[in-house]
Amino acid sequence: MCERYVESVRHSHELGIQIIEAREQSVRAVMPWQERLVGNPDTNMIHGGAIFAFLDQLGGLANALRVFPTFEITPTIDFRIDHLRAPTPGAAIIGEAECYRLSEHVAFVRLEAWAEGAEEPIATGMATYMRMKVPNAGTVVAP
Amino acid sequence: MCERYVESVRHSHELGIQIIEAREQSVRAVMPWQERLVGNPDTNMIHGGAIFAFLDQLGGLANALRVFPTFEITPTIDFRIDHLRAPTPGAAIIGEAECYRLSEHVAFVRLEAWAEGAEEPIATGMATYMRMKVPNAGTVVAP
Amino acid sequence: MCERYVESVRHSHELGIQIIEAREQSVRAVMPWQERLVGNPDTNMIHGGAIFAFLDQLGGLANALRVFPTFEITPTIDFRIDHLRAPTPGAAIIGEAECYRLSEHVAFVRLEAWAEGAEEPIATGMATYMRMKVPNAGTVVAP
Amino acid sequence: MCERYVESVRHSHELGIQIIEAREQSVRAVMPWQERLVGNPDTNMIHGGAIFAFLDQLGGLANALRVFPTFEITPTIDFRIDHLRAPTPGAAIIGEAECYRLSEHVAFVRLEAWAEGAEEPIATGMATYMRMKVPNAGTVVAP
Repeated sequence: MCERYVESVRHSHELGIQIIEAREQSVRAVMPWQERLVGNPDTNMIHGGAIFAFLDQLGGLANALRVFPTFEITPTIDFRIDHLRAPTPGAAIIGEAECYRLSEHVAFVRLEAWAEGAEEPIATGMATYMRMKVPNAGTVVAP
Repeated sequence: MCERYVESVRHSHELGIQIIEAREQSVRAVMPWQERLVGNPDTNMIHGGAIFAFLDQLGGLANALRVFPTFEITPTIDFRIDHLRAPTPGAAIIGEAECYRLSEHVAFVRLEAWAEGAEEPIATGMATYMRMKVPNAGTVVAP
Repeated sequence: MCERYVESVRHSHELGIQIIEAREQSVRAVMPWQERLVGNPDTNMIHGGAIFAFLDQLGGLANALRVFPTFEITPTIDFRIDHLRAPTPGAAIIGEAECYRLSEHVAFVRLEAWAEGAEEPIATGMATYMRMKVPNAGTVVAP
Repeated sequence: MCERYVESVRHSHELGIQIIEAREQSVRAVMPWQERLVGNPDTNMIHGGAIFAFLDQLGGLANALRVFPTFEITPTIDFRIDHLRAPTPGAAIIGEAECYRLSEHVAFVRLEAWAEGAEEPIATGMATYMRMKVPNAGTVVAP
Protein backbone atom coordinates (compact mmCIF):
# COMPACT_ATOMS: atom_id res chain seq x y z
CA MET A 1 0.00 0.00 0.00
CA CYS A 2 2.77 2.44 0.98
CA GLU A 3 4.72 1.79 -2.16
CA ARG A 4 1.72 2.45 -4.35
CA TYR A 5 1.06 5.61 -2.36
CA VAL A 6 4.58 6.88 -2.97
CA GLU A 7 4.43 5.90 -6.64
CA SER A 8 1.16 7.76 -7.04
CA VAL A 9 2.61 11.11 -5.95
CA ARG A 10 5.01 12.40 -8.55
CA HIS A 11 6.73 14.66 -6.05
CA SER A 12 7.39 11.69 -3.73
CA HIS A 13 8.76 9.85 -6.69
CA GLU A 14 11.05 12.78 -7.54
CA LEU A 15 12.26 12.82 -3.95
CA GLY A 16 13.12 9.13 -4.30
CA ILE A 17 11.29 8.19 -1.09
CA GLN A 18 11.69 4.54 -0.07
CA ILE A 19 9.67 2.98 2.75
CA ILE A 20 11.73 1.29 5.48
CA GLU A 21 8.97 0.22 7.83
CA ALA A 22 5.21 0.71 8.07
CA ARG A 23 3.35 0.19 11.34
CA GLU A 24 -0.23 0.67 12.48
CA GLN A 25 -0.05 4.42 12.81
CA SER A 26 3.48 5.33 11.87
CA VAL A 27 5.95 5.00 9.03
CA ARG A 28 9.72 5.27 8.59
CA ALA A 29 11.29 5.99 5.22
CA VAL A 30 14.49 7.20 3.58
CA MET A 31 15.08 9.99 1.07
CA PRO A 32 18.43 9.21 -0.61
CA TRP A 33 20.89 12.02 -1.21
CA GLN A 34 20.56 13.46 -4.74
CA GLU A 35 22.51 16.32 -6.22
CA ARG A 36 19.35 18.13 -7.28
CA LEU A 37 18.06 18.18 -3.66
CA VAL A 38 21.13 20.13 -2.60
CA GLY A 39 20.54 23.79 -1.75
CA ASN A 40 24.11 25.02 -1.82
CA PRO A 41 26.71 23.01 -3.80
CA ASP A 42 29.44 24.24 -1.40
CA THR A 43 27.86 22.29 1.46
CA ASN A 44 26.33 19.31 -0.36
CA MET A 45 23.52 19.20 2.22
CA ILE A 46 19.92 18.35 1.28
CA HIS A 47 17.81 21.51 1.29
CA GLY A 48 15.21 22.31 3.97
CA GLY A 49 12.45 22.45 1.37
CA ALA A 50 13.08 18.84 0.36
CA ILE A 51 13.12 17.75 4.00
CA PHE A 52 9.79 19.50 4.56
CA ALA A 53 8.27 17.90 1.44
CA PHE A 54 9.57 14.49 2.55
CA LEU A 55 8.08 14.80 6.04
CA ASP A 56 4.79 16.19 4.70
CA GLN A 57 4.50 13.09 2.47
CA LEU A 58 5.25 10.81 5.41
CA GLY A 59 2.52 12.51 7.43
CA GLY A 60 -0.03 11.69 4.76
CA LEU A 61 1.25 8.14 4.71
CA ALA A 62 0.96 7.76 8.49
CA ASN A 63 -2.67 8.91 8.21
CA ALA A 64 -3.32 6.36 5.46
CA LEU A 65 -1.88 3.62 7.68
CA ARG A 66 -3.96 4.71 10.64
CA VAL A 67 -7.26 4.49 8.74
CA PHE A 68 -6.28 1.42 6.68
CA PRO A 69 -8.07 -0.57 5.29
CA THR A 70 -10.47 2.33 4.72
CA PHE A 71 -9.27 5.10 2.46
CA GLU A 72 -9.20 8.83 3.05
CA ILE A 73 -7.54 11.80 1.42
CA THR A 74 -5.83 13.95 4.05
CA PRO A 75 -4.67 17.34 2.76
CA THR A 76 -2.39 19.24 5.11
CA ILE A 77 -4.11 21.92 7.21
CA ASP A 78 -0.97 23.31 8.80
CA PHE A 79 2.56 22.13 9.42
CA ARG A 80 5.27 23.32 11.78
CA ILE A 81 8.84 22.25 11.26
CA ASP A 82 11.75 23.03 13.59
CA HIS A 83 15.26 22.91 12.16
CA LEU A 84 17.62 21.59 14.82
CA ARG A 85 20.89 21.00 12.97
CA ALA A 86 22.33 21.08 9.50
CA PRO A 87 22.19 17.61 7.88
CA THR A 88 25.44 15.74 7.24
CA PRO A 89 26.81 16.69 3.79
CA GLY A 90 26.14 13.95 1.27
CA ALA A 91 23.93 11.98 3.66
CA ALA A 92 20.50 10.49 2.96
CA ILE A 93 17.65 11.63 5.24
CA ILE A 94 15.64 9.21 7.38
CA GLY A 95 12.14 10.37 8.31
CA GLU A 96 9.45 9.15 10.65
CA ALA A 97 5.82 10.19 11.00
CA GLU A 98 3.25 9.10 13.55
CA CYS A 99 -0.47 9.82 13.40
CA TYR A 100 -0.93 9.93 17.16
CA ARG A 101 -4.50 11.25 17.25
CA LEU A 102 -7.48 10.98 14.96
CA SER A 103 -10.43 13.21 15.81
CA GLU A 104 -13.62 13.26 13.77
CA HIS A 105 -12.23 15.62 11.12
CA VAL A 106 -8.55 16.10 11.96
CA ALA A 107 -5.48 13.84 11.99
CA PHE A 108 -2.66 15.00 14.31
CA VAL A 109 0.85 13.95 13.32
CA ARG A 110 4.32 14.29 14.82
CA LEU A 111 7.40 13.95 12.66
CA GLU A 112 11.15 13.64 12.93
CA ALA A 113 14.10 13.50 10.52
CA TRP A 114 17.74 12.37 10.84
CA ALA A 115 20.74 12.35 8.59
CA GLU A 116 21.53 8.71 7.92
CA GLY A 117 24.18 7.46 10.31
CA ALA A 118 23.69 10.28 12.81
CA GLU A 119 21.92 9.86 16.12
CA GLU A 120 20.56 13.31 16.75
CA PRO A 121 17.56 14.55 14.75
CA ILE A 122 17.95 17.40 12.24
CA ALA A 123 14.28 18.37 12.27
CA THR A 124 11.08 17.79 14.21
CA GLY A 125 7.56 18.62 13.14
CA MET A 126 3.93 18.83 14.21
CA ALA A 127 1.13 18.92 11.71
CA THR A 128 -2.63 18.61 11.28
CA TYR A 129 -4.37 17.08 8.28
CA MET A 130 -8.02 17.26 7.24
CA ARG A 131 -9.77 13.89 6.99
CA MET A 132 -11.78 13.60 3.77
CA LYS A 133 -13.64 10.41 3.14
CA VAL A 134 -13.67 9.40 -0.49
CA PRO A 135 -17.28 8.62 -1.49
CA ASN A 136 -17.74 5.08 -2.77
CA ALA A 137 -14.07 4.35 -2.27
CA GLY A 138 -14.78 1.23 -0.26
CA THR A 139 -11.75 -0.27 1.40
CA VAL A 140 -8.30 -0.76 -0.02
CA VAL A 141 -7.89 -4.23 -1.47
CA ALA A 142 -4.72 -6.08 -2.28
CA PRO A 143 -3.84 -5.86 -6.00
CA MET B 1 21.29 41.62 -4.70
CA CYS B 2 18.12 39.48 -4.73
CA GLU B 3 18.94 37.98 -8.08
CA ARG B 4 22.41 36.98 -6.94
CA TYR B 5 20.88 35.51 -3.79
CA VAL B 6 18.47 33.37 -5.82
CA GLU B 7 21.21 32.33 -8.22
CA SER B 8 23.42 31.29 -5.32
CA VAL B 9 20.92 28.76 -3.96
CA ARG B 10 20.64 25.84 -6.30
CA HIS B 11 17.26 24.86 -4.94
CA SER B 12 15.88 28.37 -5.63
CA HIS B 13 17.29 28.08 -9.10
CA GLU B 14 15.56 24.71 -9.58
CA LEU B 15 12.30 26.26 -8.41
CA GLY B 16 12.75 28.95 -11.06
CA ILE B 17 12.14 31.77 -8.57
CA GLN B 18 12.00 35.26 -10.15
CA ILE B 19 11.91 38.43 -8.08
CA ILE B 20 9.00 40.79 -8.82
CA GLU B 21 9.66 43.50 -6.26
CA ALA B 22 12.07 44.00 -3.39
CA ARG B 23 11.35 46.54 -0.65
CA GLU B 24 13.04 47.53 2.60
CA GLN B 25 11.86 44.54 4.59
CA SER B 26 9.76 42.52 2.19
CA VAL B 27 9.96 40.78 -1.16
CA ARG B 28 7.50 39.51 -3.76
CA ALA B 29 8.43 36.83 -6.27
CA VAL B 30 6.98 34.30 -8.67
CA MET B 31 7.59 30.56 -9.00
CA PRO B 32 6.49 29.61 -12.52
CA TRP B 33 4.51 26.42 -13.06
CA GLN B 34 6.76 23.51 -14.01
CA GLU B 35 5.72 19.95 -14.65
CA ARG B 36 8.28 18.60 -12.20
CA LEU B 37 6.79 20.69 -9.35
CA VAL B 38 3.45 18.94 -9.80
CA GLY B 39 2.51 16.46 -7.07
CA ASN B 40 -0.30 14.64 -8.84
CA PRO B 41 -0.40 14.73 -12.67
CA ASP B 42 -4.20 14.35 -12.53
CA THR B 43 -4.54 17.78 -10.94
CA ASN B 44 -1.57 19.64 -12.43
CA MET B 45 -1.24 21.67 -9.23
CA ILE B 46 2.13 22.66 -7.81
CA HIS B 47 2.94 20.52 -4.78
CA GLY B 48 2.85 21.80 -1.20
CA GLY B 49 6.51 20.95 -0.70
CA ALA B 50 7.52 23.30 -3.53
CA ILE B 51 5.33 26.08 -2.11
CA PHE B 52 6.95 25.62 1.29
CA ALA B 53 10.45 25.69 -0.22
CA PHE B 54 9.55 28.80 -2.23
CA LEU B 55 8.24 30.67 0.83
CA ASP B 56 11.16 29.55 2.99
CA GLN B 57 13.54 31.03 0.39
CA LEU B 58 11.56 34.28 0.32
CA GLY B 59 11.78 34.49 4.10
CA GLY B 60 15.58 34.36 3.92
CA LEU B 61 15.47 37.00 1.21
CA ALA B 62 13.25 39.31 3.29
CA ASN B 63 15.78 39.01 6.11
CA ALA B 64 18.63 39.86 3.73
CA LEU B 65 16.74 42.97 2.59
CA ARG B 66 16.02 44.03 6.15
CA VAL B 67 19.70 43.96 7.19
CA PHE B 68 21.03 45.24 3.84
CA PRO B 69 23.68 46.57 3.25
CA THR B 70 25.15 44.41 6.00
CA PHE B 71 25.18 40.68 5.40
CA GLU B 72 23.91 37.88 7.60
CA ILE B 73 23.14 34.20 7.15
CA THR B 74 19.69 33.40 8.55
CA PRO B 75 18.98 29.67 8.81
CA THR B 76 15.36 28.80 9.56
CA ILE B 77 14.61 28.04 13.22
CA ASP B 78 11.00 27.02 12.71
CA PHE B 79 8.34 27.53 10.09
CA ARG B 80 4.57 27.16 10.20
CA ILE B 81 2.59 26.99 7.00
CA ASP B 82 -1.21 26.89 6.73
CA HIS B 83 -2.75 25.50 3.57
CA LEU B 84 -5.91 27.44 2.77
CA ARG B 85 -6.89 26.26 -0.70
CA ALA B 86 -5.63 24.10 -3.52
CA PRO B 87 -3.68 26.17 -6.08
CA THR B 88 -5.17 26.69 -9.54
CA PRO B 89 -4.07 23.84 -11.85
CA GLY B 90 -1.34 24.97 -14.20
CA ALA B 91 -0.88 28.31 -12.43
CA ALA B 92 2.35 29.94 -11.30
CA ILE B 93 2.64 30.79 -7.59
CA ILE B 94 3.19 34.33 -6.31
CA GLY B 95 4.81 34.61 -2.90
CA GLU B 96 5.46 37.41 -0.47
CA ALA B 97 7.58 37.52 2.67
CA GLU B 98 7.98 40.31 5.20
CA CYS B 99 10.58 40.43 7.96
CA TYR B 100 8.38 42.38 10.39
CA ARG B 101 10.58 42.12 13.45
CA LEU B 102 14.30 41.82 14.05
CA SER B 103 15.34 41.05 17.60
CA GLU B 104 18.96 40.67 18.64
CA HIS B 105 19.22 37.06 17.49
CA VAL B 106 15.93 36.26 15.75
CA ALA B 107 14.21 37.49 12.57
CA PHE B 108 10.39 37.10 12.56
CA VAL B 109 8.77 36.69 9.15
CA ARG B 110 5.22 36.43 7.84
CA LEU B 111 4.52 34.91 4.45
CA GLU B 112 1.73 34.48 1.95
CA ALA B 113 1.25 32.71 -1.39
CA TRP B 114 -1.33 33.02 -4.20
CA ALA B 115 -1.96 31.21 -7.43
CA GLU B 116 -1.27 33.74 -10.20
CA GLY B 117 -4.48 35.43 -11.29
CA ALA B 118 -6.41 34.47 -8.14
CA GLU B 119 -7.26 36.89 -5.38
CA GLU B 120 -7.46 34.64 -2.37
CA PRO B 121 -4.26 33.25 -0.84
CA ILE B 122 -3.51 29.53 -1.00
CA ALA B 123 -1.11 29.54 1.94
CA THR B 124 0.01 31.71 4.84
CA GLY B 125 3.04 31.26 7.01
CA MET B 126 4.89 32.42 10.11
CA ALA B 127 8.55 31.68 10.65
CA THR B 128 11.57 32.53 12.74
CA TYR B 129 15.15 32.65 11.49
CA MET B 130 18.42 32.77 13.43
CA ARG B 131 20.58 35.83 12.72
CA MET B 132 24.21 34.85 12.15
CA LYS B 133 26.67 37.58 11.42
CA VAL B 134 29.31 36.56 8.93
CA PRO B 135 32.75 37.50 10.35
CA ASN B 136 34.71 39.87 8.11
CA ALA B 137 31.88 39.92 5.57
CA GLY B 138 31.76 43.68 5.54
CA THR B 139 28.81 45.14 3.73
CA VAL B 140 27.36 44.14 0.40
CA VAL B 141 28.69 46.31 -2.40
CA ALA B 142 27.22 46.89 -5.80
CA PRO B 143 28.82 44.73 -8.47
CA MET C 1 -23.27 39.59 20.63
CA CYS C 2 -19.59 39.99 21.51
CA GLU C 3 -20.33 41.19 24.99
CA ARG C 4 -22.56 38.22 25.69
CA TYR C 5 -19.86 35.96 24.30
CA VAL C 6 -17.27 37.39 26.66
CA GLU C 7 -19.66 37.26 29.57
CA SER C 8 -20.40 33.60 28.84
CA VAL C 9 -16.78 32.50 29.18
CA ARG C 10 -15.66 32.75 32.76
CA HIS C 11 -12.01 32.90 31.82
CA SER C 12 -12.67 35.87 29.50
CA HIS C 13 -14.48 37.52 32.34
CA GLU C 14 -11.52 36.88 34.67
CA LEU C 15 -9.21 38.41 32.08
CA GLY C 16 -11.45 41.48 32.05
CA ILE C 17 -11.72 41.50 28.24
CA GLN C 18 -13.59 44.51 26.80
CA ILE C 19 -14.55 44.76 23.14
CA ILE C 20 -13.33 47.90 21.32
CA GLU C 21 -14.61 47.20 17.83
CA ALA C 22 -16.28 44.29 16.06
CA ARG C 23 -16.27 44.01 12.28
CA GLU C 24 -17.46 41.41 9.78
CA GLN C 25 -14.61 39.00 10.32
CA SER C 26 -12.39 40.63 12.89
CA VAL C 27 -12.46 42.02 16.40
CA ARG C 28 -10.33 44.34 18.51
CA ALA C 29 -10.43 44.28 22.30
CA VAL C 30 -8.52 45.33 25.39
CA MET C 31 -7.36 43.32 28.38
CA PRO C 32 -6.74 45.84 31.18
CA TRP C 33 -3.67 45.48 33.35
CA GLN C 34 -4.44 43.58 36.57
CA GLU C 35 -2.01 42.65 39.29
CA ARG C 36 -3.04 39.00 39.18
CA LEU C 37 -2.09 38.79 35.46
CA VAL C 38 1.47 39.76 36.28
CA GLY C 39 4.06 36.99 35.98
CA ASN C 40 6.91 38.60 37.84
CA PRO C 41 6.11 41.40 40.32
CA ASP C 42 9.56 42.91 39.69
CA THR C 43 8.61 43.73 36.11
CA ASN C 44 4.86 44.37 36.44
CA MET C 45 4.32 42.99 32.93
CA ILE C 46 1.28 40.91 32.00
CA HIS C 47 2.25 37.25 31.67
CA GLY C 48 2.52 35.43 28.32
CA GLY C 49 -0.10 32.90 29.41
CA ALA C 50 -2.68 35.66 29.86
CA ILE C 51 -1.79 37.14 26.47
CA PHE C 52 -2.22 33.74 24.85
CA ALA C 53 -5.58 33.19 26.57
CA PHE C 54 -6.72 36.67 25.52
CA LEU C 55 -5.79 36.11 21.87
CA ASP C 56 -7.29 32.61 21.85
CA GLN C 57 -10.60 34.12 23.06
CA LEU C 58 -10.45 36.80 20.38
CA GLY C 59 -9.92 34.12 17.74
CA GLY C 60 -13.12 32.39 18.79
CA LEU C 61 -14.88 35.74 18.70
CA ALA C 62 -13.62 36.53 15.18
CA ASN C 63 -15.01 33.18 14.06
CA ALA C 64 -18.38 33.96 15.67
CA LEU C 65 -18.48 37.30 13.83
CA ARG C 66 -17.59 35.67 10.53
CA VAL C 67 -20.46 33.16 10.69
CA PHE C 68 -22.94 35.57 12.33
CA PRO C 69 -25.98 35.43 12.36
CA THR C 70 -25.58 31.65 12.36
CA PHE C 71 -23.98 30.12 15.41
CA GLU C 72 -21.09 27.70 15.66
CA ILE C 73 -18.80 26.47 18.40
CA THR C 74 -15.18 26.67 17.28
CA PRO C 75 -12.75 24.86 19.59
CA THR C 76 -9.08 25.58 18.90
CA ILE C 77 -7.28 22.93 16.83
CA ASP C 78 -3.83 24.47 17.10
CA PHE C 79 -2.36 27.83 17.91
CA ARG C 80 1.04 29.35 17.28
CA ILE C 81 2.12 32.47 19.11
CA ASP C 82 5.35 34.40 18.52
CA HIS C 83 6.62 36.63 21.30
CA LEU C 84 8.23 39.72 19.76
CA ARG C 85 8.85 42.00 22.70
CA ALA C 86 8.18 42.28 26.40
CA PRO C 87 4.97 44.27 27.07
CA THR C 88 5.25 47.68 28.71
CA PRO C 89 5.15 47.31 32.52
CA GLY C 90 1.76 48.27 33.88
CA ALA C 91 0.19 48.57 30.43
CA ALA C 92 -3.10 47.09 29.21
CA ILE C 93 -2.92 44.78 26.19
CA ILE C 94 -4.78 45.47 22.96
CA GLY C 95 -5.54 42.42 20.83
CA GLU C 96 -6.89 41.88 17.35
CA ALA C 97 -8.07 38.70 15.63
CA GLU C 98 -9.16 38.18 12.04
CA CYS C 99 -10.83 35.07 10.67
CA TYR C 100 -9.34 35.42 7.19
CA ARG C 101 -10.43 32.04 5.79
CA LEU C 102 -13.33 29.70 6.43
CA SER C 103 -13.07 26.29 4.82
CA GLU C 104 -15.76 23.65 5.20
CA HIS C 105 -14.54 22.46 8.60
CA VAL C 106 -11.73 24.83 9.59
CA ALA C 107 -11.53 28.55 10.47
CA PHE C 108 -8.09 30.14 9.93
CA VAL C 109 -7.27 33.11 12.15
CA ARG C 110 -4.39 35.58 12.44
CA LEU C 111 -3.84 37.53 15.64
CA GLU C 112 -1.79 40.38 16.99
CA ALA C 113 -1.28 42.04 20.38
CA TRP C 114 0.15 45.40 21.47
CA ALA C 115 0.84 47.04 24.78
CA GLU C 116 -1.54 50.02 25.01
CA GLY C 117 0.17 53.18 23.84
CA ALA C 118 2.95 51.37 21.98
CA GLU C 119 3.13 51.08 18.23
CA GLU C 120 5.02 47.86 17.75
CA PRO C 121 3.29 44.53 18.42
CA ILE C 122 4.37 42.35 21.32
CA ALA C 123 2.96 39.14 19.88
CA THR C 124 1.62 37.70 16.65
CA GLY C 125 -0.29 34.48 16.17
CA MET C 126 -1.73 32.03 13.68
CA ALA C 127 -4.38 29.53 14.64
CA THR C 128 -6.91 27.07 13.30
CA TYR C 129 -10.29 26.34 14.85
CA MET C 130 -12.72 23.47 14.18
CA ARG C 131 -16.16 24.55 12.96
CA MET C 132 -18.92 22.74 14.84
CA LYS C 133 -22.47 23.52 13.91
CA VAL C 134 -24.80 23.50 16.86
CA PRO C 135 -27.83 21.33 16.04
CA ASN C 136 -31.12 23.25 16.25
CA ALA C 137 -29.31 26.40 17.28
CA GLY C 138 -30.94 28.46 14.59
CA THR C 139 -29.54 31.93 14.20
CA VAL C 140 -28.52 34.39 16.88
CA VAL C 141 -31.32 36.79 17.69
CA ALA C 142 -31.15 40.10 19.42
CA PRO C 143 -32.13 39.89 23.11
CA MET D 1 15.48 24.53 42.33
CA CYS D 2 12.18 23.81 40.58
CA GLU D 3 10.15 24.79 43.58
CA ARG D 4 11.93 28.10 43.91
CA TYR D 5 11.44 28.65 40.19
CA VAL D 6 7.69 28.10 40.49
CA GLU D 7 7.48 30.26 43.60
CA SER D 8 9.30 33.05 41.81
CA VAL D 9 6.74 33.33 39.02
CA ARG D 10 3.50 34.73 40.38
CA HIS D 11 1.50 33.32 37.49
CA SER D 12 2.86 29.80 38.18
CA HIS D 13 1.91 30.31 41.76
CA GLU D 14 -1.62 31.35 40.77
CA LEU D 15 -1.90 28.25 38.60
CA GLY D 16 -0.96 26.16 41.64
CA ILE D 17 1.76 24.27 39.78
CA GLN D 18 3.39 21.45 41.77
CA ILE D 19 6.45 19.58 40.56
CA ILE D 20 6.11 15.78 40.37
CA GLU D 21 9.49 14.85 38.96
CA ALA D 22 12.50 16.73 37.61
CA ARG D 23 15.07 15.02 35.41
CA GLU D 24 18.15 16.15 33.50
CA GLN D 25 16.29 17.80 30.66
CA SER D 26 12.63 17.26 31.42
CA VAL D 27 10.05 17.94 34.09
CA ARG D 28 6.61 16.62 35.02
CA ALA D 29 4.17 18.62 37.12
CA VAL D 30 0.53 18.92 38.08
CA MET D 31 -1.85 21.88 37.89
CA PRO D 32 -4.71 21.09 40.30
CA TRP D 33 -8.27 21.83 39.24
CA GLN D 34 -9.44 25.23 40.50
CA GLU D 35 -12.77 26.88 39.91
CA ARG D 36 -11.14 30.05 38.63
CA LEU D 37 -9.29 28.12 35.89
CA VAL D 38 -12.61 26.95 34.46
CA GLY D 39 -13.64 28.53 31.17
CA ASN D 40 -17.28 27.53 31.09
CA PRO D 41 -18.98 26.65 34.41
CA ASP D 42 -21.35 24.31 32.54
CA THR D 43 -18.47 21.99 31.68
CA ASN D 44 -16.16 22.46 34.68
CA MET D 45 -13.14 21.90 32.42
CA ILE D 46 -9.89 23.83 32.86
CA HIS D 47 -9.55 26.47 30.16
CA GLY D 48 -7.12 26.21 27.22
CA GLY D 49 -5.40 29.43 28.26
CA ALA D 50 -4.49 27.94 31.64
CA ILE D 51 -3.19 24.78 29.97
CA PHE D 52 -1.05 26.87 27.63
CA ALA D 53 0.31 28.95 30.51
CA PHE D 54 1.05 25.77 32.50
CA LEU D 55 2.96 24.17 29.60
CA ASP D 56 4.81 27.39 28.79
CA GLN D 57 6.02 27.49 32.42
CA LEU D 58 7.10 23.86 32.24
CA GLY D 59 9.07 24.60 29.06
CA GLY D 60 11.05 27.28 30.88
CA LEU D 61 11.62 24.85 33.72
CA ALA D 62 12.89 22.11 31.38
CA ASN D 63 15.37 24.63 29.97
CA ALA D 64 16.51 25.54 33.48
CA LEU D 65 17.07 21.86 34.25
CA ARG D 66 19.00 21.32 31.04
CA VAL D 67 21.50 24.12 31.74
CA PHE D 68 21.66 23.51 35.52
CA PRO D 69 23.82 24.31 37.46
CA THR D 70 24.38 27.35 35.27
CA PHE D 71 21.56 29.84 35.10
CA GLU D 72 19.86 31.33 32.06
CA ILE D 73 16.67 33.26 31.40
CA THR D 74 14.77 31.70 28.47
CA PRO D 75 11.92 33.86 27.20
CA THR D 76 9.59 32.11 24.76
CA ILE D 77 10.27 32.83 21.08
CA ASP D 78 7.28 30.95 19.72
CA PHE D 79 4.95 28.24 20.93
CA ARG D 80 2.60 25.90 19.09
CA ILE D 81 -0.07 24.02 20.98
CA ASP D 82 -2.41 21.40 19.50
CA HIS D 83 -5.66 20.70 21.32
CA LEU D 84 -6.46 17.00 21.01
CA ARG D 85 -9.36 16.48 23.37
CA ALA D 86 -11.41 18.28 25.96
CA PRO D 87 -9.99 17.68 29.46
CA THR D 88 -12.04 15.65 31.92
CA PRO D 89 -14.43 17.93 33.87
CA GLY D 90 -13.13 18.57 37.36
CA ALA D 91 -9.77 16.91 36.68
CA ALA D 92 -6.30 18.22 37.43
CA ILE D 93 -3.91 18.56 34.50
CA ILE D 94 -0.56 16.74 34.33
CA GLY D 95 2.07 18.33 32.11
CA GLU D 96 5.47 17.30 30.84
CA ALA D 97 8.14 19.31 29.06
CA GLU D 98 11.43 18.14 27.57
CA CYS D 99 14.21 20.39 26.33
CA TYR D 100 15.39 18.00 23.62
CA ARG D 101 17.84 20.30 21.85
CA LEU D 102 20.01 23.21 22.93
CA SER D 103 21.64 25.16 20.12
CA GLU D 104 23.91 28.13 20.75
CA HIS D 105 21.02 30.61 21.18
CA VAL D 106 17.84 28.53 21.08
CA ALA D 107 16.29 25.86 23.33
CA PHE D 108 13.85 23.49 21.57
CA VAL D 109 11.12 21.99 23.75
CA ARG D 110 8.34 19.45 23.27
CA LEU D 111 5.39 19.37 25.63
CA GLU D 112 2.40 17.24 26.49
CA ALA D 113 -0.59 17.48 28.85
CA TRP D 114 -3.07 14.94 30.20
CA ALA D 115 -6.14 15.11 32.40
CA GLU D 116 -5.25 13.31 35.63
CA GLY D 117 -6.38 9.69 35.48
CA ALA D 118 -6.73 9.64 31.70
CA GLU D 119 -4.30 7.91 29.40
CA GLU D 120 -4.64 9.91 26.23
CA PRO D 121 -3.10 13.40 26.03
CA ILE D 122 -5.33 16.47 25.78
CA ALA D 123 -2.65 18.70 24.27
CA THR D 124 0.78 18.53 22.67
CA GLY D 125 3.16 21.38 22.01
CA MET D 126 6.39 22.44 20.36
CA ALA D 127 8.20 25.60 21.36
CA THR D 128 11.44 27.50 21.04
CA TYR D 129 13.00 29.66 23.73
CA MET D 130 15.81 32.22 23.52
CA ARG D 131 18.83 31.46 25.71
CA MET D 132 19.96 34.53 27.64
CA LYS D 133 22.93 34.19 29.91
CA VAL D 134 22.62 36.26 33.04
CA PRO D 135 25.83 38.30 33.52
CA ASN D 136 27.57 37.56 36.79
CA ALA D 137 24.91 35.07 37.79
CA GLY D 138 27.43 32.33 38.42
CA THR D 139 25.92 28.93 39.08
CA VAL D 140 22.87 28.09 41.15
CA VAL D 141 23.82 27.17 44.71
CA ALA D 142 21.79 25.33 47.24
CA PRO D 143 20.09 27.64 49.73
